[in-house]
Amino acid sequence: MSGNEIWLESLITKTPQEGRELAIKMSRKSIAAIQTDPEVRKNLRKDYAEDTKQLIASANVIAIEFQTIAAANNYWR
Amino acid sequence: MSGNEIWLESLITKTPQEGRELAIKMSRKSIAAIQTDPEVRKNLRKDYAEDTKQLIASANVIAIEFQTIAAANNYWR
Amino acid sequence: MSGNEIWLESLITKTPQEGRELAIKMSRKSIAAIQTDPEVRKNLRKDYAEDTKQLIASANVIAIEFQTIAAANNYWR
Amino acid sequence: MSGNEIWLESLITKTPQEGRELAIKMSRKSIAAIQTDPEVRKNLRKDYAEDTKQLIASANVIAIEFQTIAAANNYWR
Amino acid sequence: MSGNEIWLESLITKTPQEGRELAIKMSRKSIAAIQTDPEVRKNLRKDYAEDTKQLIASANVIAIEFQTIAAANNYWR
Amino acid sequence: MSGNEIWLESLITKTPQEGRELAIKMSRKSIAAIQTDPEVRKNLRKDYAEDTKQLIASANVIAIEFQTIAAANNYWR
Repeated sequence: MSGNEIWLESLITKTPQEGRELAIKMSRKSIAAIQTDPEVRKNLRKDYAEDTKQLIASANVIAIEFQTIAAANNYWR
Repeated sequence: MSGNEIWLESLITKTPQEGRELAIKMSRKSIAAIQTDPEVRKNLRKDYAEDTKQLIASANVIAIEFQTIAAANNYWR
Repeated sequence: MSGNEIWLESLITKTPQEGRELAIKMSRKSIAAIQTDPEVRKNLRKDYAEDTKQLIASANVIAIEFQTIAAANNYWR
Repeated sequence: MSGNEIWLESLITKTPQEGRELAIKMSRKSIAAIQTDPEVRKNLRKDYAEDTKQLIASANVIAIEFQTIAAANNYWR
Repeated sequence: MSGNEIWLESLITKTPQEGRELAIKMSRKSIAAIQTDPEVRKNLRKDYAEDTKQLIASANVIAIEFQTIAAANNYWR
Repeated sequence: MSGNEIWLESLITKTPQEGRELAIKMSRKSIAAIQTDPEVRKNLRKDYAEDTKQLIASANVIAIEFQTIAAANNYWR
């Protein structure tokens, strides 16, 4: 899928904000796993970056990924 | 993504209501991470603030983010 | 967002049914946080109250909020 | 919202199947809390009972409600 | 709803794969609980089996049901 | 459904990244369980691989499946 590139070594992050960034990365990697052509993905970008419905749907994915990351990090307590 | 701005130092809040406010902030920051142009975001605002479908989808995101925050705070018990 | 009004003091409720009522309240407060004009919200009401797609999407939000409340109350066991 | 009717006394059920029935009831009660007119709800029924998109969305709500009920019952183990 | 037929005796399965099969069954039973006419369900089948949007939405439901089943089985560890 | 093919022996993976790959596999197997004809699935592929709405919805499913896998693996801590 993502070839041999290792992009997810750990769910542990130093801070909650780094956890957010990882959640965004995970969401994007899911899309890249289905639409594997980077050129196509680049062209598709305009389809969702100005469509609030899709921006909200993306935020839903990020929220779910972040739940997992936050639990892994014991909520950085 | 969000440049160098640190906006999420902790998931811990003093009260449940502050937890709600953080959940809303997290949802908004996700959208800002994808649509990075503040001017475009401002123009998009009218697209969803009067569209009940999108208001409900936004509430779905907030509910998921709040689950994470509430668990982090041990439900403010 | 919600001004100075404190509407969420605790996630603890006496009964599961009060938990459902709180879940509905939380869903509504999310929408009110985005669409802050009560007059607009009132006019929008007809858009979703007779649209089954939106009624089902609203029930999805309530179900997520209730998960959080039920966990906070240790399921009223 | 639901007047004085008490319809949710407990999340505890004797069997997993009763848990499914409670999940369906909870989903329906959410819709009834928003669309309070039983006559309107009856007329809306045909809108979703033959629309697979809405049937799937309803199943999504039931799955979330059931998660809560199953946890409350310690998975009937 | 589902008459007297008992179709869910336990959430415990021998293997993860049987857990997947139970998750699919649970999703289908939800739809059958709302659209009770088997003939109508059969006719509706073509509406979603070739519509990728609905196939993805169905996979979302299965993923949620499987979360519950996996937790019940302590992840078959 | 999936005939006799055993494709899910365990939720345990060596690394988080293998967990992502399993989450993607699980999502795909759900779709294959509903649309059982591989030829039809192949033809449907173009319907979603260039539709950002469906790519985001697919990422939502993957995020949910990954939550389950991550919990099963105790977050690879």
